[in-house]
Amino acid sequence: MADDDIFKQFKEHSVAEFFKKNRQMLGFSGKVRSLTIIVHEFMTNSLDACEEAGILPELFVQVEELDKEKEHYRLTVKDNGPGIPKTHLGKALGQMLAGTKFHRYLQQRGQQGIGAAACTMFSYLTTGQPTRAISCHKGKKVVADITIDFKANKPSVSVIEESDTVDNGLTVISEFKDVKYERSNHGVYEYLRRTALANPHCSITLIEPTNERVAIPRSVIENPPRPFEIKPHPLGIGTHDLLEFAKHNKESRRMSSFLQETFSRFSAGKVEELRAIVPSVDLNKNPQNLSWDEAEMIVKGFSQLRWIAPATDSLVPIGKGHVEVSFANIFNPEVLVVTERSPKVYRGGIPFMVEVGIAYGGGVAAAGKKGEVMRFANRVPLLFDSGGCAISETIKTMDWKRYDVKDFEEEPIAVLVNLISVHVPYTGAGKQAISQEEDVMDEIKFALMEASRGVQKYLSGKRKAHEIANKKKVVSRYIQQLSGDLSSLSGEKRADIEKALTKIIEEKYAREETEVEEAAESEPAVKEPETGGEEE
Amino acid sequence: MADDDIFKQFKEHSVAEFFKKNRQMLGFSGKVRSLTIIVHEFMTNSLDACEEAGILPELFVQVEELDKEKEHYRLTVKDNGPGIPKTHLGKALGQMLAGTKFHRYLQQRGQQGIGAAACTMFSYLTTGQPTRAISCHKGKKVVADITIDFKANKPSVSVIEESDTVDNGLTVISEFKDVKYERSNHGVYEYLRRTALANPHCSITLIEPTNERVAIPRSVIENPPRPFEIKPHPLGIGTHDLLEFAKHNKESRRMSSFLQETFSRFSAGKVEELRAIVPSVDLNKNPQNLSWDEAEMIVKGFSQLRWIAPATDSLVPIGKGHVEVSFANIFNPEVLVVTERSPKVYRGGIPFMVEVGIAYGGGVAAAGKKGEVMRFANRVPLLFDSGGCAISETIKTMDWKRYDVKDFEEEPIAVLVNLISVHVPYTGAGKQAISQEEDVMDEIKFALMEASRGVQKYLSGKRKAHEIANKKKVVSRYIQQLSGDLSSLSGEKRADIEKALTKIIEEKYAREETEVEEAAESEPAVKEPETGGEEE
Repeated sequence: MADDDIFKQFKEHSVAEFFKKNRQMLGFSGKVRSLTIIVHEFMTNSLDACEEAGILPELFVQVEELDKEKEHYRLTVKDNGPGIPKTHLGKALGQMLAGTKFHRYLQQRGQQGIGAAACTMFSYLTTGQPTRAISCHKGKKVVADITIDFKANKPSVSVIEESDTVDNGLTVISEFKDVKYERSNHGVYEYLRRTALANPHCSITLIEPTNERVAIPRSVIENPPRPFEIKPHPLGIGTHDLLEFAKHNKESRRMSSFLQETFSRFSAGKVEELRAIVPSVDLNKNPQNLSWDEAEMIVKGFSQLRWIAPATDSLVPIGKGHVEVSFANIFNPEVLVVTERSPKVYRGGIPFMVEVGIAYGGGVAAAGKKGEVMRFANRVPLLFDSGGCAISETIKTMDWKRYDVKDFEEEPIAVLVNLISVHVPYTGAGKQAISQEEDVMDEIKFALMEASRGVQKYLSGKRKAHEIANKKKVVSRYIQQLSGDLSSLSGEKRADIEKALTKIIEEKYAREETEVEEAAESEPAVKEPETGGEEE
Repeated sequence: MADDDIFKQFKEHSVAEFFKKNRQMLGFSGKVRSLTIIVHEFMTNSLDACEEAGILPELFVQVEELDKEKEHYRLTVKDNGPGIPKTHLGKALGQMLAGTKFHRYLQQRGQQGIGAAACTMFSYLTTGQPTRAISCHKGKKVVADITIDFKANKPSVSVIEESDTVDNGLTVISEFKDVKYERSNHGVYEYLRRTALANPHCSITLIEPTNERVAIPRSVIENPPRPFEIKPHPLGIGTHDLLEFAKHNKESRRMSSFLQETFSRFSAGKVEELRAIVPSVDLNKNPQNLSWDEAEMIVKGFSQLRWIAPATDSLVPIGKGHVEVSFANIFNPEVLVVTERSPKVYRGGIPFMVEVGIAYGGGVAAAGKKGEVMRFANRVPLLFDSGGCAISETIKTMDWKRYDVKDFEEEPIAVLVNLISVHVPYTGAGKQAISQEEDVMDEIKFALMEASRGVQKYLSGKRKAHEIANKKKVVSRYIQQLSGDLSSLSGEKRADIEKALTKIIEEKYAREETEVEEAAESEPAVKEPETGGEEE
């Protein structure tokens, strides 16, 4: 083709067309996986909606097989959340990159505004059917059929019914082909089981294609504390971000007040510190007039100041107690250690934290689990794409032998890692793996080390106690013989001698046991690099 | 927050905003990697443009370090391609999901229309500078500075200069921070070296920040044959695709002619076969009036007919001869086997083919390479995200011991796999790994098995030859003693006896060697499943 013609073929495409052609990037590859991804997208939206509205979530998932040969299924996901108003129903379920989540600095499960529309797309592509939404929101019930116009990335909505209601919640019913229900490690059942593990406040009911009813009741009867929406932290800001905030700022006439209003941890005192560091930038100027060079100097100045870490209450982990209960329920392991570390920042300023639970032996062994890794991000189970995920890769780099775990892959050990952040750096739009950011991997490693030391303490303690008990047993064998011989030699009563010898031995080994325990407890904490930030 | 407020926060976002916030999804994570990704995006565009215009590519890449402390670089990539007309310059470099590639059924390096705009974005985000483009296209030279308006995903172009020219080609000059030049396995240098390996018709010059000039001359003086743009294959079509084609069809008034004009391998005879299989669908009807059910029946009918495979000339591999020359140049291995398999289809109908080269011993050992995997897609080196890539995963599942490779990771072996397709199913927009589609993995496996058998033949031949030589040596040790003894016993001349014995042994082992060689050559071919498609 001559180059004249090439540019006649120049076209613009919508993000919906892009993902239609590259559905594997959304996680739609493989039949079992595709169905799990769909449930995952609806579940995360429902949980976010319930919690944001302060409602204790009750989720109902039904998978019906309509035609076995054609692998044709109907999926129903129903929540007791606040519902979606009619005005937003189409966009929420039939438009990509639209929603309430993408731009907020808030710990949420969804963060892209792609997932639900992707499911509507996949349903339509495989069955030609619209997605039926039944939304009960503030006294109004709307039933609508929704599809997506790929060329425009716009929803097409046909309202079936409108009425008053006393209920609330969203029900989504859609059909799919090219998917498969299976009770495998990557199936819907396992996904829900892990969701329950990380969300013990959530009640889940699953009805399988066989009509089997799986009920996972909540083990905690109140929602976790709401994470607060925060302002961006100064250390997480690039020059372009600062300029963009400055340009869109309406309230502040001066840089000094703009900075305090826009960013977290920015006090009047910090403005003065900044002024001293970047004297050539006029902090009284109007933010609208900020130049790239000035913004760059300010951002450099940010990095030279000491900042209070991001607010702790912006991040809400599953929690030590809940992880312990969940783990105990599932595995009833011989030893269980949970660590929860304080929030840190990555890429200079995006708050995140890591919690780790390690279960060893007992029920883990009984369940035949070896080197089991359970990855979560903002309490959402990550079942796919473990290769290349920051969590899996960090676990691989751990020197497990140092913690008396001889071969991670072969021992009865289960590791849970939950990464919590206002913006999880996923490797792809399918949100199944976490990008290998250095700060994130370091923190995962420290958390793993901390928890591993707890396991090691137990394992090595167990070994020492075993050794001591063995020695005691060996030594005790001589008591009878020795007491008899000493009695003959000395004329003392045999029973008295035996009692005295037993006491000596008991005391000696009781002392050794205490020493083992004390040594274990006084071991130094995990060493980690200085963060440089002052603590709150 | 009350649910009243949530929907006030409902917003729509552009794809540029999405990738601005999730730049790791485009491959921008890590400093060395980011710079390689940028060079990769520009190189692939340049190579595609040159080849499409029938120009033998000459590429010039310069990396200058402007400020060491700030990790501030300037990158220049210059090609001798057809250039881009002024009207399209902005969209080509400053708008995502726009371009000439996304919608074509053609083997190309780029296929998304994201990459170049992503580089413009990354440059602007890290330095605030526009990207300078100098385009010489059909006698006109345009110099323009380009940035991207993230909210709208639209380019902003400021033309600096326009003049007449006799040159052609595109030069892109842009600045970056947050990147790093390094001669590592993941750096620009290695990327270009591998690009040359898979594109021996391309001449590449690299000027490193140290001013060192690396010239990689072409080893082949003509472009590879142009892959033909093809029509979609009936087996690659879903119901929704068929409906979409039918709706956008302008020429055909009847389904029967529409099918023949829209799809490859669709003859009048095939229309009749289809008519027999789906009698309830009126193939004389206007495509505009096709219903979902009818489309579904037709697509099901497609899968029941036997089809000629996609046209072979739609896919152009590197080629056996070229891989051999390239490999020999780089490694000069002891043994080198290259296999190239015939085109297949995945997802029912997207044509692809696999070529594999395996080098063993010799220069591979000398270079200290062990279990080296070189992944390519449409001749483009894939340097990152090997975990989860269909190529790496397939190599892992190979039973290498069967091919006399005892431990893949520890032997001096280098494997090249190039996947060629009109649509490579990448796992993400960063285009660094291939999705694990079953059909694709099967085919990679068959190609690996074929090449491995060549290596095995050599290795086992070498071992047998070694064994035979050893036996011969041992047996030969007895000749002198035996000749002496026989001479004494028989009275025959010792020299004659020695000569006769030597001849017997020589003949015996010469025969064994021939048998080894013949056995190796007559081994059966790799067994593979029937494709079910009739051959052309």
